[in-house]
Amino acid sequence: MSTRLAALTRRTVLSSRSATCPKTLRPAVQVRWATSATSEPHQQDANGTVKGASTPTKRIEYTSKKYPEIKRDSRFAELSQENVNYFKELLGSESAVLDGVSKDASEDIEPFNSDWMRKFRGHTKLVLKPSSTDEVSKILKYCNENMLAVVPQGGNTGLVGGSVPVFDEIVISMQKMNNIRSFDEVSGIFVADAGVILEVADNYLAERNHIFPLDLGAKGSCHIGGNVATNAGGLRLLRYGSLHGNVLGIEAVLPDGRIMNDLSTLRKNNTGYDLKQLFIGGEGTIGIITAVSIICPRRSPAVNVAYFGLESFDHAQKAFRAAKNQLSEILSAFEMMDGRTQKLLKTVSGKKMPLEGEHPFYCLIETSGSNTDHDSEKLQAFLEHVMEAEIVSDGVLSENQTQSAELWACREGITEILGYWGGVYKYDLSLPIADLYALVDDTRERLTQAGFIGDDDSHPVIDVVGYGHMGDANLHLNIPVRRFEKEVEKTIEPWVYEWVQKKNGSISAEHGLGVTKKPYIGYSRDEGMVGMMKQVKNLYDPNGIMNPYKYI
Amino acid sequence: MSTRLAALTRRTVLSSRSATCPKTLRPAVQVRWATSATSEPHQQDANGTVKGASTPTKRIEYTSKKYPEIKRDSRFAELSQENVNYFKELLGSESAVLDGVSKDASEDIEPFNSDWMRKFRGHTKLVLKPSSTDEVSKILKYCNENMLAVVPQGGNTGLVGGSVPVFDEIVISMQKMNNIRSFDEVSGIFVADAGVILEVADNYLAERNHIFPLDLGAKGSCHIGGNVATNAGGLRLLRYGSLHGNVLGIEAVLPDGRIMNDLSTLRKNNTGYDLKQLFIGGEGTIGIITAVSIICPRRSPAVNVAYFGLESFDHAQKAFRAAKNQLSEILSAFEMMDGRTQKLLKTVSGKKMPLEGEHPFYCLIETSGSNTDHDSEKLQAFLEHVMEAEIVSDGVLSENQTQSAELWACREGITEILGYWGGVYKYDLSLPIADLYALVDDTRERLTQAGFIGDDDSHPVIDVVGYGHMGDANLHLNIPVRRFEKEVEKTIEPWVYEWVQKKNGSISAEHGLGVTKKPYIGYSRDEGMVGMMKQVKNLYDPNGIMNPYKYI
Repeated sequence: MSTRLAALTRRTVLSSRSATCPKTLRPAVQVRWATSATSEPHQQDANGTVKGASTPTKRIEYTSKKYPEIKRDSRFAELSQENVNYFKELLGSESAVLDGVSKDASEDIEPFNSDWMRKFRGHTKLVLKPSSTDEVSKILKYCNENMLAVVPQGGNTGLVGGSVPVFDEIVISMQKMNNIRSFDEVSGIFVADAGVILEVADNYLAERNHIFPLDLGAKGSCHIGGNVATNAGGLRLLRYGSLHGNVLGIEAVLPDGRIMNDLSTLRKNNTGYDLKQLFIGGEGTIGIITAVSIICPRRSPAVNVAYFGLESFDHAQKAFRAAKNQLSEILSAFEMMDGRTQKLLKTVSGKKMPLEGEHPFYCLIETSGSNTDHDSEKLQAFLEHVMEAEIVSDGVLSENQTQSAELWACREGITEILGYWGGVYKYDLSLPIADLYALVDDTRERLTQAGFIGDDDSHPVIDVVGYGHMGDANLHLNIPVRRFEKEVEKTIEPWVYEWVQKKNGSISAEHGLGVTKKPYIGYSRDEGMVGMMKQVKNLYDPNGIMNPYKYI
Repeated sequence: MSTRLAALTRRTVLSSRSATCPKTLRPAVQVRWATSATSEPHQQDANGTVKGASTPTKRIEYTSKKYPEIKRDSRFAELSQENVNYFKELLGSESAVLDGVSKDASEDIEPFNSDWMRKFRGHTKLVLKPSSTDEVSKILKYCNENMLAVVPQGGNTGLVGGSVPVFDEIVISMQKMNNIRSFDEVSGIFVADAGVILEVADNYLAERNHIFPLDLGAKGSCHIGGNVATNAGGLRLLRYGSLHGNVLGIEAVLPDGRIMNDLSTLRKNNTGYDLKQLFIGGEGTIGIITAVSIICPRRSPAVNVAYFGLESFDHAQKAFRAAKNQLSEILSAFEMMDGRTQKLLKTVSGKKMPLEGEHPFYCLIETSGSNTDHDSEKLQAFLEHVMEAEIVSDGVLSENQTQSAELWACREGITEILGYWGGVYKYDLSLPIADLYALVDDTRERLTQAGFIGDDDSHPVIDVVGYGHMGDANLHLNIPVRRFEKEVEKTIEPWVYEWVQKKNGSISAEHGLGVTKKPYIGYSRDEGMVGMMKQVKNLYDPNGIMNPYKYI
């Protein structure tokens, strides 16, 4: 390796951008699995087969069975024929879909009842698909008056069971509210319905030289309304900041049918409490977001992606510090993947990886700027530094968009392939950056000692891996399994949350609470805070009909 | 002018950074008035003299007299000796300052009763200066139980009368809570007490190669807690975004004494409603912010400032678009000042301005980046473009920090000198950028037709001027006057708010509501929104003791 590093003089680094590529910093190789955008599968078929999975064809277990401690709230009414008639009259038959009525499989309501991870399944009998804010208002007002519980649903790409029913809650799907309302090219302010798919929004903006300030693996399916409702973080947060800063306005409907008209297109508006912020990350528990106004940055003409192998997590930290220092305003992503994720990716996809050999850690860096020459110069200076200082062991730099997408696939493809063997325990945590990876090692040690990890079918656990948004100190601790077993879960939880609590971390960095983390909020929020939150919930949703059994 | 522009070849622009400076793009001249930092005066002396003002020495009129429609809320108790004894015991005599007791002028409570603009004056008899969150908690609990109304006060640099009492509300000054609690150089996360002065925080960060993501004229006096409570916008928002995105955590005390422990130092934390957002811009009406956690960007080693003269507001818009396109990720400020502000600045300060001649409009551009050469190259390409395309008429580029500060003083010095003749009607508005300046012209026309504007003392109004944060579509419409006259005010209000409402603007972009704009919130928010806000106010402050007579 040292010769490899020694060969990295300024000249060879510079020449990496030419047609002939030095061995040590060559262009990205062809990797053949699907790139980025749609890599996080959307549960589309009724029996919930996970793309690429070899085994699971059996039905998904009901959430109510899996979590027997959750009881149906007896205050809620059961759906009556009269209720159904009201909704059919309001929306038309094709937008008020009742279970078992249609013979057309595509209209089946089962996909609305379960999630793409095959972990959650509800018992809903009715899916409503409003086409306007007014329709959403009428639906909620009626449900509130008749004590009918509801679940708002966007692209249903969530990871915590937040967007599917637990019992017979009516699903309100936002898929028909998918109009882009306006875009101002001078200010970059974009206004659209909640049901617009993130990738559709981003493509629309791309044609107009802008980008959506949020990007994530599920972009091909997820809705921008759902992104806002769950305060999605994703891949661009490091550069463009959180939705709390970028969302300028929200139109939402409260459970009693009131419409919150706060769809401001102003960068600054200090006229009273910023109530829309409660809906950002509110997970559909106090109302339904029907439209969003968001400020979008200009699209950078120069985008570079580099992918490195590193000896240790400590080296990854050093690379991050160097990137912040030297790439500064052009750094747009700094992602970390451990060697195990890359090995599993290679195994499942069967494709050639960008780097030869195996490294304990990998990082992906993206730069976005307005001047290709300037950015390349900055990136080359950075590369020279990290290679010469032996911070990174090997690296590859993309030369065009296709190669960039291929490198991104090494990061974005992880989520999908981890489900290959049957299922995944997923933990999405914020931790002080220095402690980020120690949790992965500790978890692996714990499950190994308990005898759960092994190569044959008698062991439920495949491996314990870690990756995530290093730039945001956000770790995705993932445990791919052959099957979900209560004993495994008990070994992980609440131990993992206690670990995070000791480090003053967050048990949910960007995925939210949903069903999964509702019982564990106490590890990240004290009683006083939870008490204040419950006051807000009771204020806006006194009947508790909005997305019950979840959140707080 | 055309010869001037014609002379601007690439070479002359490039040479502007050399020791000899071309006439058309020369280094900033010496301007002798105080630079930036402390230009927005803090009302320090008991009779409220405005720095630089020649005439006003009379006492400030009581707010209660000026706004006779505001009545003291009879639910509130009057301060008793028993109350005073409690506070003296809790805080000690020097931190529970009673009117007329101390002979030391510096301990006088009058500065806490009135604002630096000389527009608001309260009747408080007691100023409390807690030193800890626990003390704040005990104070509020006691006040809440005894129905004593309070006003939280930071640096008292506000512009809408939000931080001084109207009647006899007890002032809770945060000036003794001024400790910096922690700073992490890897993540850039800074945690400090609410009473830390913004400039102190920024200087502390500067020594550690970071900057506070907010900057404003009053930085020498204002507190970071007050900045957060008023959701201050300022000069860096264009680049670093709003406090809603940058503030990661808040510690606050609710009226009932409960402490909201949300002082997170995590970039991402999706565990329940983001309640701290209600305190950002809540203007001290639901609790008192006692500490803030905020993410701070690295300080850019390369900072350039340019100052231009332009023919029209349309030219300023073109310059803004060009700057967004060409300066992109390094653009850190784009400010607009009309020719009248610069003329008044010259008149009052008597100093030489950076550009010869007079221009109808001026813009100030700042770039901040990590590479001096790259930034200069980008800036020069931009300058060539705007000069060759005749978008700007004349310009000057700073060559060092001192010159940058001098150019900034042409923008930051405005606020102070406008008070020279006696007072200023100040409006802080968000508008679609194309309409931004039309309001200034319309207001001038309106006041001219009413006969209020003139050179001699018989006319109350000096002029109508406009400046502001063009990058955020935020206009400061200012009307310097010899004296405040009800008839003038009636001519401006509510007409100005109606004008803004027609354009879907905001009647308060960054200054907040306070006393001044409370009656006008309806021009920017509908009844439903105001209703929802009142629900929040009642939820957290059911007795209404927090900063009454203001906000919503």
